[in-house]
Amino acid sequence: MPKLRVHNLTVTLDGFASGVGQRPGAPFGDGVDGLHEWAFAGMRELTDGKGGIDAGWIERGDENIGATIMGRNMFGPVRGPWQDESWTGWWGENPPYHHDVFVHTHHLRPSQPMEGGTVFHFTDEPVETVLRRAFDAAGGQDVRIGGGPATVQQYLRAGLVDEMHVVVVPLLAGRGERLFDDLGDALDGYRVAEVVASPAATHSLLVRR
Amino acid sequence: MPKLRVHNLTVTLDGFASGVGQRPGAPFGDGVDGLHEWAFAGMRELTDGKGGIDAGWIERGDENIGATIMGRNMFGPVRGPWQDESWTGWWGENPPYHHDVFVHTHHLRPSQPMEGGTVFHFTDEPVETVLRRAFDAAGGQDVRIGGGPATVQQYLRAGLVDEMHVVVVPLLAGRGERLFDDLGDALDGYRVAEVVASPAATHSLLVRR
Repeated sequence: MPKLRVHNLTVTLDGFASGVGQRPGAPFGDGVDGLHEWAFAGMRELTDGKGGIDAGWIERGDENIGATIMGRNMFGPVRGPWQDESWTGWWGENPPYHHDVFVHTHHLRPSQPMEGGTVFHFTDEPVETVLRRAFDAAGGQDVRIGGGPATVQQYLRAGLVDEMHVVVVPLLAGRGERLFDDLGDALDGYRVAEVVASPAATHSLLVRR
Repeated sequence: MPKLRVHNLTVTLDGFASGVGQRPGAPFGDGVDGLHEWAFAGMRELTDGKGGIDAGWIERGDENIGATIMGRNMFGPVRGPWQDESWTGWWGENPPYHHDVFVHTHHLRPSQPMEGGTVFHFTDEPVETVLRRAFDAAGGQDVRIGGGPATVQQYLRAGLVDEMHVVVVPLLAGRGERLFDDLGDALDGYRVAEVVASPAATHSLLVRR
């Protein structure tokens, strides 16, 4: 059975997955500089052909993924209605997805094909419907939720997430958007199946009980 | 200068330092079984004369401590007025403090000397006053806040904590009392100076910026 997976979801020691004031130039807002430094270091290790704990998790997150789901704040800093449709994500002309990407938003717009095979679809459908579409698009592979925290929370509350890779980094944000918040009883269905620490981050894998 | 230190403050991956339903037999409430397993393992290592990351942090937490401050919930499960004064803490006749322990409570009672030199003092004074009394009692050594999270938060908000050792364990509580909550801007004055992981826990040391 294909799975719904979350990867590389990084939080500060005090639990924040993003800061305040998300905008172009500061996709994760203020107060969280260095949040993803572990991932950049891991990607450099991969580029250099070296192994490493962080590199291993980066690779693992990309394996067998056939479609991506994300929230609108992960797609871009624009809030409210689109002023035009010139914003096509943070990732340039050739985004690193190369498959269908479903963006949750109340403000619909036509699907946006990009170079390299990525197609952004904009949807205000319920999570169950979006997930069904994503599994169809993935053609038997797994589906990944890219983020951000509010979108992950929606899928956790609906009991739809099969695996979640959470990364805790030694930073303090003080404020922002928490990952583990507004979840009700949702976490009761999960346990921590793996933990491994690199010098930069502690990686945990949540799976269903 | 003597310091105010917090040690062994253990939180689940989702950020909870205690569960719900604290009572005799469940000092940390429900849903957090195994929260302090790392500490028990560390103490066993010490008893057996072995080293180890967890054992090292246990030892470090006891070094150069001359007085302890704690909240009433850490002292016992009784809420509201004392029905009598027969409750003298979770730790038996000879508590492992062997120095003056200041218990924050709105319900005062006479100081309670115990075997082995521990004396429990009950106070409703402001944190600054209690800390001054604790430093006096410590005679030049450091003062430690035992917990729980609400008491640590009071001292953090007042900017009085010099060092805080936080332990993250691979458990999910889902509900309970958070450590990193209601802190306003208090964490802006701190940074994570050390991180080290054992198989059981990730240890971080927060110090002043």
